[in-house]
Amino acid sequence: MAILAVGSVALDDVETPFGRVTSALGGSAIHFAAAASVFAPVQVVGVVGNDYPLDRLDFLRARGVDLTGLEVTEGESFRWSGRYTHDLSTAHTLDTRLGVFADFHPRIPEAFKAPDVLFLGNIDPRLQLEVLNQVDRAGIVACDTMNYWIEGSRAPLLEVLARVDVLLVNEAEVRQLAGDANLFRAANWILDQGPKRLVVKKGEHGAILFDKGFDDGGIFFIPGYPLEDVFDPTGAGDAFAGGFLGYLAGNGDGSPRTLRNALVHGSVLGSFAVEDFSVGRLSRVTRDEIAERVRSFRAMTHFDLQPVTGAPAPPASP
Amino acid sequence: MAILAVGSVALDDVETPFGRVTSALGGSAIHFAAAASVFAPVQVVGVVGNDYPLDRLDFLRARGVDLTGLEVTEGESFRWSGRYTHDLSTAHTLDTRLGVFADFHPRIPEAFKAPDVLFLGNIDPRLQLEVLNQVDRAGIVACDTMNYWIEGSRAPLLEVLARVDVLLVNEAEVRQLAGDANLFRAANWILDQGPKRLVVKKGEHGAILFDKGFDDGGIFFIPGYPLEDVFDPTGAGDAFAGGFLGYLAGNGDGSPRTLRNALVHGSVLGSFAVEDFSVGRLSRVTRDEIAERVRSFRAMTHFDLQPVTGAPAPPASP
Repeated sequence: MAILAVGSVALDDVETPFGRVTSALGGSAIHFAAAASVFAPVQVVGVVGNDYPLDRLDFLRARGVDLTGLEVTEGESFRWSGRYTHDLSTAHTLDTRLGVFADFHPRIPEAFKAPDVLFLGNIDPRLQLEVLNQVDRAGIVACDTMNYWIEGSRAPLLEVLARVDVLLVNEAEVRQLAGDANLFRAANWILDQGPKRLVVKKGEHGAILFDKGFDDGGIFFIPGYPLEDVFDPTGAGDAFAGGFLGYLAGNGDGSPRTLRNALVHGSVLGSFAVEDFSVGRLSRVTRDEIAERVRSFRAMTHFDLQPVTGAPAPPASP
Repeated sequence: MAILAVGSVALDDVETPFGRVTSALGGSAIHFAAAASVFAPVQVVGVVGNDYPLDRLDFLRARGVDLTGLEVTEGESFRWSGRYTHDLSTAHTLDTRLGVFADFHPRIPEAFKAPDVLFLGNIDPRLQLEVLNQVDRAGIVACDTMNYWIEGSRAPLLEVLARVDVLLVNEAEVRQLAGDANLFRAANWILDQGPKRLVVKKGEHGAILFDKGFDDGGIFFIPGYPLEDVFDPTGAGDAFAGGFLGYLAGNGDGSPRTLRNALVHGSVLGSFAVEDFSVGRLSRVTRDEIAERVRSFRAMTHFDLQPVTGAPAPPASP
């Protein structure tokens, strides 16, 4: 059950209140692959410059990640530089240098054209369409996007939405895309544009899975995993997507139970991602550690219904 | 199983994007009583001016709320005026006139001095101490507070905390009180000051119940109830406290199961509170409507564990 991931491959300079790192592995495809590869084989399509330290991706190869779709082009790799302040909730971009990523046009190798799961990372929706046009068939198509494309590339983005099964975005993006401050109305609007499912990532507040027609019960909430030490939030959203889609690829029946477990696994992988810079923690995470957090999620959210006793019902209102 | 609630009793002018209301019933004790009285008898201690429309509290009397502790004093009632903008997340105070509330010193009637549950609404911690000094014994003591007292009355507030069982506050207040941006470290700090339990209200993001020593499993998350139309958030936190403590008073065994159900009921009452101005919706809510939302909470949060299959465990990290 292979997953094809198309997205950015970058080198990041990141500063948090707890330290700094330079030229760290980054980009949506890398964070995604570091999480998804725990559960299923991943194929990556992206581009880097000839300055890229390819040997540092060996930990992905060791997990069965196929990097033959990673083009190496004359020029500089995509570089992002950002800083997080005290509350770690917002990344302040200091510098973005697109390098060879500026002229990226995804080329999907023949062997990758029928993935079980296709993840369109947060790139120009025109490029997401180029990928969709090259893929022969895919079991599940999922995509991410961001405020920049919602604002500036609305038409191609809506074309993408009409062709995907799952959209994974954050709260602010849901509201911006639908033009509605109410998250639940906004979710309904998005599900009317094409996706059968919407995953809303809320950072420390967890995530919500909406099925089309969720007013009849297709809604599932999970909290953020309680962490006393968040080190670096960069890539947490992609790790979430990797955990979610990786689990789906590994347990592909698409039942409500599988989808709910997938959301929990997304959140768990996101929680590991933020415990170290870059993909440090994800490169070391074990199946046992993941299973322990999944069980803990269950213990932190379940309750047995207990009817109200001890007092009469209130009288009818006047 | 009676609940004694001490807090403000006010008349509110509120404006939201959906309408406005003047001289509406407000104040922490009223919002609390409107919710808690669904589950258990409530006794209110507070003060109003002789301009207060007491007959408008008949819906509370009809639900068994004892208002004999509500002093009527020569002068004007407490008035608050506020406005919510588009996203409804923050109240902008336009005017506050304390009136007779400025000289309020709670006097607890003899008949109220041994409540099963005592709720100290968000008032000056010195007044909360005056209440504690008048009460002979109480099964559960719970209190609320706010940024104003955390900043300006820290010493008496810490004295209160040392004497309460449950603190109910919002996220920002937890962080401010503990001086720590990380919610989980902050919660641990607060539980070291006295309370056995901490309820963190997160508005649309739900709530968290922390037991002392929660690292060993005493943590319970619930989401915010999904509402497509939030009308007026005023008093939602007090309605939450009313639902939580009302349920505890009605089902008083204090077991983990009861506490979790209480948190769910708090969230459900908070969700009804915001569906109309003032206490409009709470005055009409029925036990059946509440039970339906409680069941729906369970359906939206539960999942059956399903182990990861379909792919080998990743090899040990290099």
